[in-house]
Amino acid sequence: MNNFTFQNKTDIRFGRDLIEGQLRDAITQFGNKVLFVYGGGSIKRSGLYEQVMRLLAGMDVVELAGVEPNPKIESVRAGQKLAKEHDVDVVLAVGGGSVIDASKVIASAKFYEGDPWELVENSALRNDIDQLPLVDILTLSATGTEMNRGSVISNMAENKKLGTYGPNTPAVSFLDPANTLTVSKWQTAAGSIDIFSHLTEQYFDRAYTPVTDGMIEGLMRTVISNAPVALAHPDDYNARGALMLASTMALNGLVGSGNENGWTVHPIEHELSAYYDITHGVGLGILTPRWMKQVLDETSQAKFAKFARNVWDIQATDDLEAAEQAIQATYNWVKSLDVPTVLQGVEIMDNQKFQVMAESAVEVGSLNTRGYKKLAPADVVAMFEASMTTDGFE
Amino acid sequence: MNNFTFQNKTDIRFGRDLIEGQLRDAITQFGNKVLFVYGGGSIKRSGLYEQVMRLLAGMDVVELAGVEPNPKIESVRAGQKLAKEHDVDVVLAVGGGSVIDASKVIASAKFYEGDPWELVENSALRNDIDQLPLVDILTLSATGTEMNRGSVISNMAENKKLGTYGPNTPAVSFLDPANTLTVSKWQTAAGSIDIFSHLTEQYFDRAYTPVTDGMIEGLMRTVISNAPVALAHPDDYNARGALMLASTMALNGLVGSGNENGWTVHPIEHELSAYYDITHGVGLGILTPRWMKQVLDETSQAKFAKFARNVWDIQATDDLEAAEQAIQATYNWVKSLDVPTVLQGVEIMDNQKFQVMAESAVEVGSLNTRGYKKLAPADVVAMFEASMTTDGFE
Repeated sequence: MNNFTFQNKTDIRFGRDLIEGQLRDAITQFGNKVLFVYGGGSIKRSGLYEQVMRLLAGMDVVELAGVEPNPKIESVRAGQKLAKEHDVDVVLAVGGGSVIDASKVIASAKFYEGDPWELVENSALRNDIDQLPLVDILTLSATGTEMNRGSVISNMAENKKLGTYGPNTPAVSFLDPANTLTVSKWQTAAGSIDIFSHLTEQYFDRAYTPVTDGMIEGLMRTVISNAPVALAHPDDYNARGALMLASTMALNGLVGSGNENGWTVHPIEHELSAYYDITHGVGLGILTPRWMKQVLDETSQAKFAKFARNVWDIQATDDLEAAEQAIQATYNWVKSLDVPTVLQGVEIMDNQKFQVMAESAVEVGSLNTRGYKKLAPADVVAMFEASMTTDGFE
Repeated sequence: MNNFTFQNKTDIRFGRDLIEGQLRDAITQFGNKVLFVYGGGSIKRSGLYEQVMRLLAGMDVVELAGVEPNPKIESVRAGQKLAKEHDVDVVLAVGGGSVIDASKVIASAKFYEGDPWELVENSALRNDIDQLPLVDILTLSATGTEMNRGSVISNMAENKKLGTYGPNTPAVSFLDPANTLTVSKWQTAAGSIDIFSHLTEQYFDRAYTPVTDGMIEGLMRTVISNAPVALAHPDDYNARGALMLASTMALNGLVGSGNENGWTVHPIEHELSAYYDITHGVGLGILTPRWMKQVLDETSQAKFAKFARNVWDIQATDDLEAAEQAIQATYNWVKSLDVPTVLQGVEIMDNQKFQVMAESAVEVGSLNTRGYKKLAPADVVAMFEASMTTDGFE
């Protein structure tokens, strides 16, 4: 087992209606001037916007609306400007991963004189500056950003979608599954696949991690069984709650403790999103089974067989056979969530950008040095090609 | 799913040799005057004592040695006196659960004018006073105290062994599996059973907890498979590491998130320890299979069957049959760790104190109101009686 450190101070408030009695105190502990960040208006339709404004009555609230999916650096720049102009004390993010991700970088950018894209490209800069405390109300179960230090920000002008890390996790995260009951089937499926992908990225690791493996297997089973329930019964509070808590547990650092290799599928998907602005989770769902086929070999088949037996209840005694069945089961599960399983389904119709995306993914993700299995651009191109056909899957 | 809050700020430093470069800074961030608490001298034999003293050279170190298993209130009183007299800034606990448990209460008692037993009997008093920061170096995988707010303190004069909770978890916990390589087979078995019991106490809960159930199942499998390895190969770093991290994860609050009923086997065992001063984990190993038989009924058999299938890989399709096989498997596992499976094995030879212990357990543990299955004193007596025979087990 590898050495590691773990500390995560986020104060999780999980459950129904907790903001009513707790939101104001959670914010005012840091001050009275709030930058309230949200997305495209779904919180206005749901009534959450009004509730928040009522709870913050009398406080000095500045709004940044319209943060988009795959949040863009332009939103961060706008937030930086507001945070500085109004000298805010705390950021309140109400929304999904995009809103919270942008808010985290804004929280750093308040203390930065330059363009915040520099903070995205070089996270180390953020450790030398302060970061505003962040309180969030999560409305989409997917990214796990509600309990980690990461953000992913897109710069469409440069066709870049990059991860960046600040010094702090959110101070307080309100996780009310009821706020996700109206999430569309498309976003529910994409979010569930995103959670599952966070788990596979950490599970398929070269390090020996007996404790976190078992925890991950349990979280995978939770996502696999609850995503279809949430799709079939969107207002099932327990299924929504299971996905919400699983998303948080999947990426708060705990189950990656002691890991050693970098992630693979996420950096590859980030290229698809950066060039085609597709839904992140849907891209992951297309790529993941192809990646599994790509990296299944004699040295990895035992881990895939463990995945087969402990996650998918596959009984095959031969490791390779069990592994192949597990990859098929993964593909079947994605398909069952009623999202595309080939790139044409997200309107990527040709291979024109495969080479440039593959080269960028290998570079940004250090896939040729830090991947679970080291991948060259040609391997990534092969994954893209395989993602244009259902060949190899039943 | 129930509402809950979760926050745990403990800074975990897991792995080999981290204290060499990190212990001094971890302590001096809080000050220069240290109360160094340890147990019966095993850290002197192992060289850890000398290493710590070398790392703290030049600092103002006061020692409290001799904290005993099932730590006694007398040790806490001695620590309180030293902490006040020397106005220490921070407590350093080096040892197992007993040393850390006593240190946590000492950390509160420095700020209390009365007898610290009052703090044990009424934890609420501790929330109104300060608590010294605690840094610990764990040397036994068992209680999980290294990442939670709890302590269990014994008062033999009153035949009481009670849980108490302070406002804070340890500030920094160093978890080096190498520090557990010399733990005896007896303590290794007892510690592993303690971890397993923490998991069963939280798993068998009336609340619907889909996410934490899966995480617990993974942790259970880790303990079940690694305890025998650590017994057979005491110097197996990975097996020791798996038990160490599992002990921390089992009781840092995470996998109990959203739970609703109180614990049962722990309060019952605390009576055995309070009256007979037996090893806690061994008592749990004797009681747990009897408790499972006691609470298995039509309303609980589905949960026991899930336990059977996801933890013990039992294939029986009938829930009751699967449940019964899982209880037998639990008994077999305890027995395989080479510890007694009946009370006579810990020199409890008669039923003289069964009634008084049962009444106390029901009262202290609120077993008749808050148990997973509500238990009256007569039920607990029946468990004690069943613990004097192997009847019902193969």
